[in-house]
Amino acid sequence: MPSTERRRVVRIGPQGRVNLQDHLAGEAPLELRIGSTPIAVLMRTPGDEADLALGFAITEGIVLGPAEVAAIGPVPEDAEANRWELRLADGVSLDPEQFRRNLYTSSSCGVCGKASIDAVRIAAPPLRAGPLVEREVLLDLPGRMRSAQRSFALTGGLHAAAAFSPDGQLRALREDIGRHNAVDKLVGSLARDAWPIPDTIMLVSGRVSFEMVQKAAVAGITVLCGVSAASALAVDLARELGLTVIGFLRDGECNVYAGEQRLA
Amino acid sequence: MPSTERRRVVRIGPQGRVNLQDHLAGEAPLELRIGSTPIAVLMRTPGDEADLALGFAITEGIVLGPAEVAAIGPVPEDAEANRWELRLADGVSLDPEQFRRNLYTSSSCGVCGKASIDAVRIAAPPLRAGPLVEREVLLDLPGRMRSAQRSFALTGGLHAAAAFSPDGQLRALREDIGRHNAVDKLVGSLARDAWPIPDTIMLVSGRVSFEMVQKAAVAGITVLCGVSAASALAVDLARELGLTVIGFLRDGECNVYAGEQRLA
Repeated sequence: MPSTERRRVVRIGPQGRVNLQDHLAGEAPLELRIGSTPIAVLMRTPGDEADLALGFAITEGIVLGPAEVAAIGPVPEDAEANRWELRLADGVSLDPEQFRRNLYTSSSCGVCGKASIDAVRIAAPPLRAGPLVEREVLLDLPGRMRSAQRSFALTGGLHAAAAFSPDGQLRALREDIGRHNAVDKLVGSLARDAWPIPDTIMLVSGRVSFEMVQKAAVAGITVLCGVSAASALAVDLARELGLTVIGFLRDGECNVYAGEQRLA
Repeated sequence: MPSTERRRVVRIGPQGRVNLQDHLAGEAPLELRIGSTPIAVLMRTPGDEADLALGFAITEGIVLGPAEVAAIGPVPEDAEANRWELRLADGVSLDPEQFRRNLYTSSSCGVCGKASIDAVRIAAPPLRAGPLVEREVLLDLPGRMRSAQRSFALTGGLHAAAAFSPDGQLRALREDIGRHNAVDKLVGSLARDAWPIPDTIMLVSGRVSFEMVQKAAVAGITVLCGVSAASALAVDLARELGLTVIGFLRDGECNVYAGEQRLA
């Protein structure tokens, strides 16, 4: 299935009505299985499914790293490739029901902010001290991400998550109609390259919410930037864990909400 | 709990570093119960919880309308008011486990787009033919929504969903860090005013995805506009159901993706 699709559209503007063909973001449900047990259905933009499956399994705490995964692929009898299966490595076992329940509670594992923060602190590895990021490198990242957003350029309708080395080189970028999926696809792709993921700056096209900080922390990524705002709970969690959170990174400015010691 | 919170922030820009206090969007988990059974945990911006609970129950197909709900309120023993309970009216019964499972599959109820669309078509009421919307009214809505977004003005970090009468009068607006929550809060507030919800144009600050169309259709709202893009599956579902979907409604222009017969 393609990540963008064409549809007929009526454009209304100062010139009146025009009939056009437009490129739209693709969206389709993906059923994710551990072995043969379905554990989640994600509404995602088709493409990079192996990255999404691995990244989701890591950032939701289902596996501790890529070594716990033997294989990822579409379920053979599914012609549309909307069912993907993650096979665990020999000797790794888990109770899929347990994660089914965890995922169901929308990754929050508690009903007050404090309980949620405690739960994440247990799941996340101790965060490393680095990297140290130069101001000029930081302020340059949105432009670098934008020029790599191929599907966004076509549709104007996809979120992006990008990984940069500490000196600002783009390592990987993933796009999806869902903000969380874009991050999971990116984490999956990074984890397949190297694990633990080396010093990385992650930039997301949207806002930085609690679950974004949670996903970054569990993946061991210490610098999380958003083009838009951060929530108060996201900032509290980042300060608790020692993660750097930067918001409104655009137009040559930004707000550092937590972890400013990583700014050179 | 407040819907916005103040945090210390380091602002980095052309003038160097400045220490400031910034207003951030509030975010906290809300546990929703039907009777005493927890059915979902939503990461939401505090405020308008009764609207959120009712709107969520309606747009997820848990209840068929406000008449099936006897009362909504915080669980008495919860000091932080992060647990809310929805009590069903006499004679209304449902199996909470069933909805637990449905919600778990991320509202999609199937793993190919076709199956999902079929499931929604069954759940949504037949949509009425109207309203008929004038071009000038339509193009004016984003400005009207923006001037009513109080928390966005403060934080720059909240999604909004607004309801307008067919002649463009603002009926209600709700804000939340989550796009879906903003819509559910809005639907809940409209449903308490009148049910079925009368002819309404709904405008959302973000993109129009499959689940947005699904929620609008189940609430009986026939005109759905987004400031940003629509997904291909959202457009397909809207065409199937007869819903009007308009994207990129901003700067005096828009794209009509489905249901153009409602444009005068």
